[in-house]
Amino acid sequence: MRMAHLITNCSFSASPAVKAPTRSTSYCCNFVQLQNSKPSNLFNKSCSMKQRKSYVIRASAAVQGQTQTPLTGSQEASAHSSSKPKKVMVIGGDGYCGWATALHLSNKGYEVAIVDNLVRRLYDHQLGLDSLTPITSIQNRVRRWKALTGKTIQLYVGDICDFEFLSEAFKSFEPDAAVHFGEQRSAPYSMIDRSRAVYTQHNNVIGTLNVLFAIKEYSEECHLVKLGTMGEYGTPNIDIEEGFITITHNGRTDTLPYPKQASSFYHLSKVHDSHNIAFTCKAWGIRATDLNQGVVYGLKTDETAMHEELSNRFDYDAVFGTALNRFCVQAAVGHPLTVYGKGGQVCEIIHLKFVLCNLFIIKLAIANPAKPGEFRVFNQFTEQFSVNELAKLVTAAGAKLGLDVQTKSVPNPRVEAEEHYYNAKHTKLIELGLVPHLLSGLAT
Amino acid sequence: MRMAHLITNCSFSASPAVKAPTRSTSYCCNFVQLQNSKPSNLFNKSCSMKQRKSYVIRASAAVQGQTQTPLTGSQEASAHSSSKPKKVMVIGGDGYCGWATALHLSNKGYEVAIVDNLVRRLYDHQLGLDSLTPITSIQNRVRRWKALTGKTIQLYVGDICDFEFLSEAFKSFEPDAAVHFGEQRSAPYSMIDRSRAVYTQHNNVIGTLNVLFAIKEYSEECHLVKLGTMGEYGTPNIDIEEGFITITHNGRTDTLPYPKQASSFYHLSKVHDSHNIAFTCKAWGIRATDLNQGVVYGLKTDETAMHEELSNRFDYDAVFGTALNRFCVQAAVGHPLTVYGKGGQVCEIIHLKFVLCNLFIIKLAIANPAKPGEFRVFNQFTEQFSVNELAKLVTAAGAKLGLDVQTKSVPNPRVEAEEHYYNAKHTKLIELGLVPHLLSGLAT
Repeated sequence: MRMAHLITNCSFSASPAVKAPTRSTSYCCNFVQLQNSKPSNLFNKSCSMKQRKSYVIRASAAVQGQTQTPLTGSQEASAHSSSKPKKVMVIGGDGYCGWATALHLSNKGYEVAIVDNLVRRLYDHQLGLDSLTPITSIQNRVRRWKALTGKTIQLYVGDICDFEFLSEAFKSFEPDAAVHFGEQRSAPYSMIDRSRAVYTQHNNVIGTLNVLFAIKEYSEECHLVKLGTMGEYGTPNIDIEEGFITITHNGRTDTLPYPKQASSFYHLSKVHDSHNIAFTCKAWGIRATDLNQGVVYGLKTDETAMHEELSNRFDYDAVFGTALNRFCVQAAVGHPLTVYGKGGQVCEIIHLKFVLCNLFIIKLAIANPAKPGEFRVFNQFTEQFSVNELAKLVTAAGAKLGLDVQTKSVPNPRVEAEEHYYNAKHTKLIELGLVPHLLSGLAT
Repeated sequence: MRMAHLITNCSFSASPAVKAPTRSTSYCCNFVQLQNSKPSNLFNKSCSMKQRKSYVIRASAAVQGQTQTPLTGSQEASAHSSSKPKKVMVIGGDGYCGWATALHLSNKGYEVAIVDNLVRRLYDHQLGLDSLTPITSIQNRVRRWKALTGKTIQLYVGDICDFEFLSEAFKSFEPDAAVHFGEQRSAPYSMIDRSRAVYTQHNNVIGTLNVLFAIKEYSEECHLVKLGTMGEYGTPNIDIEEGFITITHNGRTDTLPYPKQASSFYHLSKVHDSHNIAFTCKAWGIRATDLNQGVVYGLKTDETAMHEELSNRFDYDAVFGTALNRFCVQAAVGHPLTVYGKGGQVCEIIHLKFVLCNLFIIKLAIANPAKPGEFRVFNQFTEQFSVNELAKLVTAAGAKLGLDVQTKSVPNPRVEAEEHYYNAKHTKLIELGLVPHLLSGLAT
């Protein structure tokens, strides 16, 4: 209970670690509205009635090499129109982000399939870890969802590095979109030893290659939403753009992929994925969105809160626990917050609910399909703070609950700059119609 | 015989495909001098007698983040001094570049070990291909070398993706430097099907990861010379720098890795390698040189010409044959030269003998060790021509031999720009002391 209150009470305002440009760097997806509002209230810039319910999302940002055209369509109607519901394959759908995403998409009327080999649960067994929140089996999870909502989530249990298995899943389900969370996603895990470094890069890179080949061979129109990471960029001494940067050099100009400087074998695997995906967009006409996601925090979404059997996992250990989640647990149990080194490292954060922005991206992809070969990159985070600032916020929230939260600096196990310039853009999603909204009040 | 004469007769002069900067873009390593001259004639900028023979190599170029200090040392003496000869592990030493390199290093007094799983020969069996020049087994090759020169080349036959095997090789041999050619190096091979795309990326990326871990665990001072490829850069509309580019963006400046845009799963695997290596330099203090090599052509080196059993392989097929080699064979047999598409694609080329410039780099690495964590990148090619220009050169050379060489355009099986701006720098090796020398007269 304490930890849930800690997350609720953290009041995040715009106080980035470094001098920011004049535009606000603090915003949140208007997620409450996305969930609760009737579509006609939601996107109100202009209306054109196409189907029973419809709206227009202002979409003025140009994606790389493309001119974005205004999106027309409907929200739930896109899933419940007279045509069949759109199908979304959630790869890694048993995990922290994937499970929340799968439920939310199903709740919004999409036909959902989860593809997962459940290896995330094996890591826990191997390392002697466990979720803080009890979670049931994936089979019980989808059964409970069906019992509560009448909605079916299909389940394909297997390894996407096994192309025979993945082929069968694609041929059977025929996805319109695929959201790919199915990777070993812990930097510390990838750095434990050679075996896990190699496993991480093999699993992640080959898994993504297989997904690309499956799309090419079985579902050419399928839009891939791939989870990348802000960590691909490293900590350059210049502003971080969204995926691409325009460079003028020796009198000539080009817009090129933003240089990558990853700081773990896990982050490197995401860099490799991004390069592979960009190539297949060009070579095969694959449509893909690379979401360079910030560090996810938070405990519940509306769907996972519906029943204890739908509960999401919550990790707080040193391998899988993300910074803010870990600090909240440490504060709740009276353990000093463990700040690595000087604590000046900048963290871009995003609440679990806002991870569900990928719903927006999927709608965008389905209602306004990307042109073949279009490779979009979004930096998906809501705010950026230094680790020290996160610690202070948790300390302040803890104080409101009567907790005396301490902080201590521990030797940094990572190879990273502990104080650095950091200014990353993350405006494309807003420009495509997501409405900024302050974080406070939306936590938990 | 015709083909050998074709390569000899091609007269390459500075006529790049695109408008070049005023500095000469055509130079060759002064390789004849490196082989024939006494050291005292070779590097004549200044002399300081350190050992029996010594020289100073002018080294004014700064590598990324480092200030290069003048090199003092000796050439053969570095290998024949009173201390033990330096050890170089040639990974992929049974292949086109690797075999020539292994012999040359051995001839120059280094203690050499070849590490190879011989899978290159298996590709031939699988695809029904073969070397144009008969080659004997690796065991016969090293036996013949021993018989002729008295020099031993150690042989470790196994897969570098097998870390147990690689560990034993490192622990047994204790290399001072490792030259890593041991990858699946054909773009067309990597694009045949999913299985070979996956194989290429797994083999190349995991193999290199294992080499990095082996250096870290067993030979911390070992300098890695890694064969990259110019193809990592793609065809940007700006000048291509050597590994890094200084960008000024929104009022701030940083020198960052040059953006990569590879055009095959093979080229992508090299991009992944470069990112992985750069990270380990920073994280572990690995010393590495990434050689972004151009397209290799040519048939013989002085060592491979010593005996038929030392003969190097020569590939002219569509999978492993490189452009200029293929054109020479096509001309010799009366087959039209097969130009892909419009033929405007720019090719950076390097004669096989000049691949042996890595000897220079190894000497540089051993005599003037890179600082821990130093990641050097060189663009290693001698000239750049469009495919059309290569075809014209071969046609002209053929005419001198009385051959009526035709050219035809065939549909381009590759996804690549067929006409594009291209201006790549390749000056760092010259600035470090390699003396430019025209190519004509050195071929074959």
